[in-house]
Amino acid sequence: VLVSDLTEADLVSRIQALVPPSPPWLTVGIGDDAAVVEPVSNRLEVLSVDALVEGVHFDRRFTPPDAIGHRALAVNLSDLGAMGAEPRLALLSLVLPAALPVADFESMIQGFGALAARHRVCVVGGNLARSPGPLILDVTVSGVVKRRQLLRRQGARPGDLVFVTGSIGGAAAGLQMLGSAGPASDSCARRYLYPSPRVRTGVLLARNRAASACIDLSDGLADAVHQVAAASGVGIRIDAGALPVHGDARRWFEARGEDAVERAICSSDDYELLFTSRPRWAGRIRNALRSSEAPPTQIGVCTPGLEVVLDRGGDSSAMSFGYKHFG
Amino acid sequence: VLVSDLTEADLVSRIQALVPPSPPWLTVGIGDDAAVVEPVSNRLEVLSVDALVEGVHFDRRFTPPDAIGHRALAVNLSDLGAMGAEPRLALLSLVLPAALPVADFESMIQGFGALAARHRVCVVGGNLARSPGPLILDVTVSGVVKRRQLLRRQGARPGDLVFVTGSIGGAAAGLQMLGSAGPASDSCARRYLYPSPRVRTGVLLARNRAASACIDLSDGLADAVHQVAAASGVGIRIDAGALPVHGDARRWFEARGEDAVERAICSSDDYELLFTSRPRWAGRIRNALRSSEAPPTQIGVCTPGLEVVLDRGGDSSAMSFGYKHFG
Repeated sequence: VLVSDLTEADLVSRIQALVPPSPPWLTVGIGDDAAVVEPVSNRLEVLSVDALVEGVHFDRRFTPPDAIGHRALAVNLSDLGAMGAEPRLALLSLVLPAALPVADFESMIQGFGALAARHRVCVVGGNLARSPGPLILDVTVSGVVKRRQLLRRQGARPGDLVFVTGSIGGAAAGLQMLGSAGPASDSCARRYLYPSPRVRTGVLLARNRAASACIDLSDGLADAVHQVAAASGVGIRIDAGALPVHGDARRWFEARGEDAVERAICSSDDYELLFTSRPRWAGRIRNALRSSEAPPTQIGVCTPGLEVVLDRGGDSSAMSFGYKHFG
Repeated sequence: VLVSDLTEADLVSRIQALVPPSPPWLTVGIGDDAAVVEPVSNRLEVLSVDALVEGVHFDRRFTPPDAIGHRALAVNLSDLGAMGAEPRLALLSLVLPAALPVADFESMIQGFGALAARHRVCVVGGNLARSPGPLILDVTVSGVVKRRQLLRRQGARPGDLVFVTGSIGGAAAGLQMLGSAGPASDSCARRYLYPSPRVRTGVLLARNRAASACIDLSDGLADAVHQVAAASGVGIRIDAGALPVHGDARRWFEARGEDAVERAICSSDDYELLFTSRPRWAGRIRNALRSSEAPPTQIGVCTPGLEVVLDRGGDSSAMSFGYKHFG
């Protein structure tokens, strides 16, 4: 059975069955022209949208449908976490090829819904459209944060320490493994297929006022470092030896004669957070991230000037920019 | 010059130059991970998302780029108007073929930005992604409405009168003209290319408590009538002779031996509003829509029971459902 065999109403009711139940603040939910929600008083609203496009951001040959749904929400939640915002709701806009099997459609929604449930995100509405080509999931999320707790890319000062949560490079290695003979490391494959957005970490950093600047790694660590440096008007020196490169990924890259550090800092599928913090806030970070699933590692320091430098055992060079070209 | 020749930052700065300036309530706008806005106190928030997909919703061979941008926002504003909500902000998610000329990209954004300016909509953010196939514009909008003024599809009662704003069928005829030898009627072509969403009308109906139910015609008048009847638990009898079929469209359809009424009620590109109202609220409608650009026409009445009937000069039959199949 293909999605083109069903009516739009059929597809909508299957979505309703697979996403978390509606909270009391949702006045009008899925199925009307628009969703109607009660705002949270005394909070700023944080809005983000990100699309996953088949053939550009994922390959259906080796990405199971539930992972596609999971990743479409994860990339958005990561943006909210980077600003210290608690996720609240999502709108799911789907552009579906007529030949998509209904079983794949349901599995995709199930992956999306499971991650939504884990983060208490309510799916308030969305859109269904036919695609003459690729499968596309475009997700809009909204979250809330207290004004004084909002995390930005700006705010780092010379002398601030630079941290990254969890590990890097695992997702890029996982993607390469999935596209080749098959995963040599389940851990890397899972990092690519089912990333854990660091929402809780971002919210705790914000509540504890433990970060002076924060960004997620959606375009890779090298790009994130450049963004924070430019927005804050500081330089940043990263110690290559301190980078928490995923162990299996390091081995995978090195076995192929690739530069593991360079690959890890330029790869774009690790949804970790990069943040800066004043040296005297060490206690705040400890309090905030005491029981974190992705403990932070100090990887560098902010400097006067605007230079972004990668230090490899005393040998310093300008850090690469990573992938930034639109085409 | 093609969009693939530019960086994402170049494209973003061109968007910033073509959309309305930021209002004071926008804390973080275009260019960051997420947008941050101050909510409006004592208002419900209304959220809607709609995608325009090349080859499904528009044909680039005869739809100028500025019309594509205009329509992508118009369909969303229409949803807000149908709920009585004042539009506030939009997020613009673009999936762009690499071979899209930058001039077309800019013209598309200009069309989007001009309609945004007219309705005081702030473009707070969005996303850019590459497309391996069709051009897609996915737009999320948010607006506000007082709780007691929210318009819904439910709320009609037997005896309520049924109205439609403006005229119907013009856009469908315009689309057919554009796809054939060339427009025989500028008015019809404009109805298709540059629809005017009835936002002001919806807001005024809401403020004057003049409507018991309301919906826009995004899926055609026949579908809208069925939706209101089902949501409200009433029947509806539509008088075919009273339908405000666009004059040029009627002539175009009749010259082709087509049933003009049937075409007009089943066509999906008229962004008019269908609403119901108690007979004693005639004064409220007059007050609300005194200087409307799209005055309402009474086209029918709500009845007990659940039958939706089209009355053609005494000859009544069940009203068609219009186009509803997903595939």
